Amino acid sequence: MRIALLGGTGELGRGLALRWAFHTHHDVVIGSRDPDAAHDVADEYQGILADRGRDVKITGFENAMAADRADVVVLAVPPYTVTDTVESVAGGLREGDVLVTPAVGMRRDDDGAHAHLPSAGSVTALVADAAPEGIPVVGALHSLPAGRLADLDADLGLDTPIVADDNRAKAVVAGLVGDVDGLRALDAGGLANAAEVESLTPLLLNVARENPEMRDVGVSFR
Amino acid sequence: MRIALLGGTGELGRGLALRWAFHTHHDVVIGSRDPDAAHDVADEYQGILADRGRDVKITGFENAMAADRADVVVLAVPPYTVTDTVESVAGGLREGDVLVTPAVGMRRDDDGAHAHLPSAGSVTALVADAAPEGIPVVGALHSLPAGRLADLDADLGLDTPIVADDNRAKAVVAGLVGDVDGLRALDAGGLANAAEVESLTPLLLNVARENPEMRDVGVSFR
Repeated sequence: MRIALLGGTGELGRGLALRWAFHTHHDVVIGSRDPDAAHDVADEYQGILADRGRDVKITGFENAMAADRADVVVLAVPPYTVTDTVESVAGGLREGDVLVTPAVGMRRDDDGAHAHLPSAGSVTALVADAAPEGIPVVGALHSLPAGRLADLDADLGLDTPIVADDNRAKAVVAGLVGDVDGLRALDAGGLANAAEVESLTPLLLNVARENPEMRDVGVSFR
Repeated sequence: MRIALLGGTGELGRGLALRWAFHTHHDVVIGSRDPDAAHDVADEYQGILADRGRDVKITGFENAMAADRADVVVLAVPPYTVTDTVESVAGGLREGDVLVTPAVGMRRDDDGAHAHLPSAGSVTALVADAAPEGIPVVGALHSLPAGRLADLDADLGLDTPIVADDNRAKAVVAGLVGDVDGLRALDAGGLANAAEVESLTPLLLNVARENPEMRDVGVSFR
């Protein structure tokens, strides 16, 4: 399968790109607003994998071109740009493609991080509203610690709750998550349950802040 | 230390009472609105422990009398009765006592469970507002699966995030949690961060609902 990571030059994009390229045989395409940046980091990630004996091709393109090439499009962009990003790539999405949003409605203050959800109920719901007709949206990957993903020597053993109204799309994304050693996607229901998934991220950040040895903490449901 | 479990006849109260009595040497006192019910379940729990060779005394009283006897008072009552319960036991609390609230602001609909927080920000904040001057409130134990606690053969390996503004009280409760084999309290900051802790429970319920083999699921931060 071909996975486009829009915002693939950012921390989460980097972690996901390296993990998918390292642990699986899926094609990874890096998207960015800046095609030169996308190309450069694609080369960098490819070099990291080559150093570990994984001879894989990672390509980089402007977001819309990256999305156009992919079966699964991960919106690893900041929450306040996620709906604009969906609109900018909509023309390249075709029936069968899947949009994945890890974006979280959150704010920070002196006390810590807090859920800060839009009136639509969740950022996931905003993405679903912005998605082209017939393109299913899956909320997933929110709670994964980007730094640990990007460190290919780090053990994961982590879960990511996943929500979608389209069961085929949910299964596709759950499969891609499960293809990475040490990751598991756990069904948390439909898009109406996205707010509870998004709210896990500020809790993780608060635990990380209060426990310096858990700086890059994730979660396991057991 | 002496721990009063108000609502100790309920599912969470039962699980906590059995675990504290089984794994630690703290005194466990069961509270209920109905003193006869409190007395009966205290006898029942004592019998369960005796069958496992643990000869411990568990007593049962009306809530206010139970609170009056304890150093740490756990409000294991339904969220909509928690502030009334605080008021009903306030007279028996003394300097140095600690109130613990595992209550969660939540609603359910056809899609699943959802965070449903009061305008104060969290149920924990409501409890803090209702608590007598000088009695610190700690939010903890929200995300622990009651059924697994009550099954003394079940492995736990679970965390519970903990919030409080009073560091001594937080440390006392974290210590009591950590005294149970397989449980760990993780600092998630001050009471202002309680909403994110409470929001974990509906997420766990949604995961449990969608994954029948995880009916009694908890969480581990790692």
